[in-house]
Amino acid sequence: MRRILVINPIADDRWNQADGDYLQSTARKDTIVDIVNIEKGASSIESFYDEAHAVPGVLKVIRENKDRYDGIMINCFADPGLNPAREICEIPVAGPGESAMIVASMLGHRFSIISVLKNVVPMFEMKAAVMGLSKRLASVKYIDVPVLALENNPDTTVESIVEKINEAVEKDSAEVAVLGCTGMLSLYRKVKDKAGIPVVEPAAASLKILETLIDLGISHSKKGLYLTPVFKKITW
Amino acid sequence: MRRILVINPIADDRWNQADGDYLQSTARKDTIVDIVNIEKGASSIESFYDEAHAVPGVLKVIRENKDRYDGIMINCFADPGLNPAREICEIPVAGPGESAMIVASMLGHRFSIISVLKNVVPMFEMKAAVMGLSKRLASVKYIDVPVLALENNPDTTVESIVEKINEAVEKDSAEVAVLGCTGMLSLYRKVKDKAGIPVVEPAAASLKILETLIDLGISHSKKGLYLTPVFKKITW
Amino acid sequence: MRRILVINPIADDRWNQADGDYLQSTARKDTIVDIVNIEKGASSIESFYDEAHAVPGVLKVIRENKDRYDGIMINCFADPGLNPAREICEIPVAGPGESAMIVASMLGHRFSIISVLKNVVPMFEMKAAVMGLSKRLASVKYIDVPVLALENNPDTTVESIVEKINEAVEKDSAEVAVLGCTGMLSLYRKVKDKAGIPVVEPAAASLKILETLIDLGISHSKKGLYLTPVFKKITW
Amino acid sequence: MRRILVINPIADDRWNQADGDYLQSTARKDTIVDIVNIEKGASSIESFYDEAHAVPGVLKVIRENKDRYDGIMINCFADPGLNPAREICEIPVAGPGESAMIVASMLGHRFSIISVLKNVVPMFEMKAAVMGLSKRLASVKYIDVPVLALENNPDTTVESIVEKINEAVEKDSAEVAVLGCTGMLSLYRKVKDKAGIPVVEPAAASLKILETLIDLGISHSKKGLYLTPVFKKITW
Amino acid sequence: MRRILVINPIADDRWNQADGDYLQSTARKDTIVDIVNIEKGASSIESFYDEAHAVPGVLKVIRENKDRYDGIMINCFADPGLNPAREICEIPVAGPGESAMIVASMLGHRFSIISVLKNVVPMFEMKAAVMGLSKRLASVKYIDVPVLALENNPDTTVESIVEKINEAVEKDSAEVAVLGCTGMLSLYRKVKDKAGIPVVEPAAASLKILETLIDLGISHSKKGLYLTPVFKKITW
Amino acid sequence: MRRILVINPIADDRWNQADGDYLQSTARKDTIVDIVNIEKGASSIESFYDEAHAVPGVLKVIRENKDRYDGIMINCFADPGLNPAREICEIPVAGPGESAMIVASMLGHRFSIISVLKNVVPMFEMKAAVMGLSKRLASVKYIDVPVLALENNPDTTVESIVEKINEAVEKDSAEVAVLGCTGMLSLYRKVKDKAGIPVVEPAAASLKILETLIDLGISHSKKGLYLTPVFKKITW
Repeated sequence: MRRILVINPIADDRWNQADGDYLQSTARKDTIVDIVNIEKGASSIESFYDEAHAVPGVLKVIRENKDRYDGIMINCFADPGLNPAREICEIPVAGPGESAMIVASMLGHRFSIISVLKNVVPMFEMKAAVMGLSKRLASVKYIDVPVLALENNPDTTVESIVEKINEAVEKDSAEVAVLGCTGMLSLYRKVKDKAGIPVVEPAAASLKILETLIDLGISHSKKGLYLTPVFKKITW
Repeated sequence: MRRILVINPIADDRWNQADGDYLQSTARKDTIVDIVNIEKGASSIESFYDEAHAVPGVLKVIRENKDRYDGIMINCFADPGLNPAREICEIPVAGPGESAMIVASMLGHRFSIISVLKNVVPMFEMKAAVMGLSKRLASVKYIDVPVLALENNPDTTVESIVEKINEAVEKDSAEVAVLGCTGMLSLYRKVKDKAGIPVVEPAAASLKILETLIDLGISHSKKGLYLTPVFKKITW
Repeated sequence: MRRILVINPIADDRWNQADGDYLQSTARKDTIVDIVNIEKGASSIESFYDEAHAVPGVLKVIRENKDRYDGIMINCFADPGLNPAREICEIPVAGPGESAMIVASMLGHRFSIISVLKNVVPMFEMKAAVMGLSKRLASVKYIDVPVLALENNPDTTVESIVEKINEAVEKDSAEVAVLGCTGMLSLYRKVKDKAGIPVVEPAAASLKILETLIDLGISHSKKGLYLTPVFKKITW
Repeated sequence: MRRILVINPIADDRWNQADGDYLQSTARKDTIVDIVNIEKGASSIESFYDEAHAVPGVLKVIRENKDRYDGIMINCFADPGLNPAREICEIPVAGPGESAMIVASMLGHRFSIISVLKNVVPMFEMKAAVMGLSKRLASVKYIDVPVLALENNPDTTVESIVEKINEAVEKDSAEVAVLGCTGMLSLYRKVKDKAGIPVVEPAAASLKILETLIDLGISHSKKGLYLTPVFKKITW
Repeated sequence: MRRILVINPIADDRWNQADGDYLQSTARKDTIVDIVNIEKGASSIESFYDEAHAVPGVLKVIRENKDRYDGIMINCFADPGLNPAREICEIPVAGPGESAMIVASMLGHRFSIISVLKNVVPMFEMKAAVMGLSKRLASVKYIDVPVLALENNPDTTVESIVEKINEAVEKDSAEVAVLGCTGMLSLYRKVKDKAGIPVVEPAAASLKILETLIDLGISHSKKGLYLTPVFKKITW
Repeated sequence: MRRILVINPIADDRWNQADGDYLQSTARKDTIVDIVNIEKGASSIESFYDEAHAVPGVLKVIRENKDRYDGIMINCFADPGLNPAREICEIPVAGPGESAMIVASMLGHRFSIISVLKNVVPMFEMKAAVMGLSKRLASVKYIDVPVLALENNPDTTVESIVEKINEAVEKDSAEVAVLGCTGMLSLYRKVKDKAGIPVVEPAAASLKILETLIDLGISHSKKGLYLTPVFKKITW
């Protein structure tokens, strides 16, 4: 049995129930998934500014809860706080952006990310560059719908996503699609059915990657990038 | 329940029992692991030449058995036949080299691979380059012991591996170690206990990554690199 | 005349006077330099965790003060909050890490960064990778002295820095040295006199680069990476 | 005088005469070109699967004949078996894919490869990446005609190739074209006459590069990637 | 007070007055800008051939004048002679191409260069590659107007430049534009007013970057790329 | 029969006889090699400054002689004037630096260049970067002997070169050595005999590559990087 804490890095509990159910159903039978949101922050993460205000809350939740879990998942494609979270944990921490790109890289030569707004295009390109996946990333596309409006007209949103996937296949030689926002998880099944290529849903990908790390009994190295910080230096 | 076929890409059944036991014990309870070797080929894979003579046998096993499995794992760090196997399968195929590097890339900024002989140094560097992980690979080190001699003096081999890990930490700023040969799996526990950094055992990493792909219900794209080949063109 | 706001991204005012004097003396005569620290955060920035707790305070200072300045400088080599600061400003924002690497790249083929602790090595390598300067970065070296202890034994610290510079020249073919911490600015003159290669002090470099951007009448593009965020989404 | 063995890596002798005549006429007067095909394998190489079944036959021909030759050429743009062939030979081995890209890289800043089917696009991009020529490769284009149908309607095929060359010039800024299949050699003259940029025919490029290596009295290093394998390990 | 020598690397004095006035007005009040052209060379720099014939003249001017200046600027986007000039000077030397790309890299994720003729596209891509900015360079566009004709129909030229900027924004995701020729400086204001993204004028960028280097009291390293040459070896 | 013009890009005829004899003996029987030096320039090329003063002379020789030759070779590892020479020629132009690196890239995974002085280290690294061979270049080493002193104590120079080759093999995993100066050609045989890895002599490599281009009837593309310049613009 393994216990996983999922953190919705937003100051809003409205998706906790649906996301928790989805992830629990994705998890193995002997995995317990708990889900919480943060107290202060943005209602969605769409900019560096939103991310900056989410991270302290994410780290607070982790500090207060990590001893009772085997692994932690930060439930947002931007992976807010992934690096500092790994600094303060002995247990593995996974993020949907990193996990989804890693899964996609095994399924074909090039993948495209379909996300929400224009500014995430360079953001995710930078993320891929740091991971080393620049050449494997065919393109980042956006449907120009903010996170909080994704489910307003779900069928229209699905159509927009599928249209961008087709464009990525034809113009950018994408072989695999990655949904570039965990807020799209309720639309995943419909997108998958209409897309002609494999589609990676990042929240599920992250949960399964986290189960893998837990099962392998392995966690982040403390001898370099993720050195344990000095906590007493912080007034917060 | 899921069924996984593990292929030892060598013309020798001597590791089937031990490897099968190890992987079955690594797998989840509802995963059935079957293991087979190939008929013709080399007794170990240490060169492009060995690899070339293993691949047709690997593909033959896959053609004859794939319909009865949910996923296939090719049990050698060189991932012999990974690309053509993905061409001929609708189910996911995983390899220890790719899987282990992917897992290592999440555990720190830089990992080193500790393998057997000198020529694998550029081989694995080329593998990392194609995956996009060149900057994340601190170094490839070799202990100068052929695969078939790894277990002759297991304690000495363990010492050699640990020595190379320490060298990688000090000289190459490695934060994570990857065992660069699945023939080292019996030595993993001892190496892990003596190494000061996380150690990735590639066979286990590959099995768990494969379980992840199976659970996500996702497989390789057939719209590019892994297009289905025309079988009737082959006389064999 | 131009007005520049310098933000010390730490919850401590002890360096405001000295840093402000140094930067005012570095600035042109018609530049007014104001310096402030943040309210809540760490007492020094040495980890992703420290950085995460500094950024909201940096952004708060910027929101409250940006209308009265022509440019903003975040006074820490890690450039905490540089990206979100550029999202919320119409005026240019500069950071010592980015500025110093850019200046160093014009002075020779390869530069080395000499910084404080081991974990900053991969951090600054990642920073250089995102900027595109990986091949120009000879190495990142650390003297293993935390920021707050740099001035305890200034002569010893200077010796350690010069020793690492010499090592970078001999082993890594560095042609230029970059001080990898703005806390080293009081040691700059002594290091410069003893080093056999040009030394870039990042706080001064950043202030001058900021003056350049202000004089060119140019600022960050709002049509991509630095799109203006939606402020009302934040509860803080 | 020098003797070169050309291996058609397919289980079909139908091109031996024409290819041999073409290559002999391309060679210098004092070069003797012998051409053979392999016994078992595919009738054309268009996938990793085809390639995997060609390589053992290629290596068999080489083992049996290398002592009577000064150099070996594997006559297929995918260069099947190039790496293991270099492991087992003291004499130089050349392949059309590698040779043609090298020649093209001297003729302009960017070249495009015009080949047969969709899946070769990522294949050849990966090949260029390993060689280090990613930035020099403008694009890989395909005419969607399998190798065995290239000569069915030669004029139509020529038109398709020229159309793709023009597209590469206009859209991808290609300055040089490379025919991405040695099966196109009979069409080379016509393509060359109609293309507005230099066109590299890979079989001829490879033969001449091989003559160059032979004349320089130089061959592959045995101190790394091409270490001599242990033959007795193979049951085949 | 600082003295800067600007060299127009062409055998023509017709722009000296206008360029000098523009740069003097861009400079600080306590900067004196002198401008000279070279004696022998081309009337504009649009090819490697033009550049080759400009460089000896540039170096002659520098040898004869460097002792009376604090910094030197070579006034052409191709930066002709930048490397040898740095070899023979103790004072800093700046070039518009390098300076403008560096400034642009701080203003957004990706910039495009809008220049004159087709052949400069690969030239400037190579320049960006050496600097390490390949991934930051969205594209190089050309208006197909030679340098000497840029001011024939200034309004038409401005329109062409703005059209290419718009194309770069829409097709290449450019966030910042760089004028790729110092001959465009008289058109800068009009282009800036019509472009929807920040525009970098390279001559001004270079002058300000040079002032920055002078103020920092720093110059090129003599311990590597810019080692002082042996003058007496030259017959000229 | 083919006629090749070799240009020694130095203002000194002292090597014409020996170099010409060496290259004629390297060439095929039906190749005629003529060799000339330039009138004005340096006596050896060891800096950007030397190179700048060699190029106009190289181009003058080419303009005056190209109509009587089938190909041109610029006999210096720095390839001075290679780019502008290709702009003004319809016939192929080769350089030892480019040719030798290309040949070395086929002989193993990584090659090292052994050259004369310290500043050529970054120079040749930049050259490899533009070609795309950075990852294939193990290292650039220098023996700290200027070109004109190479033959003062030939046995000592040979020892120094071999020592650096051994160092490159042991420390940098080099598999192939490239002599990084055409002035070393008289030492080639002795170096080759003592080195444990293949050694590429660049002048011979360049001559043979040039013969290959001539025989393939192919030359540089005029549709991009090597567009024909406008000659009348030059006053010289």
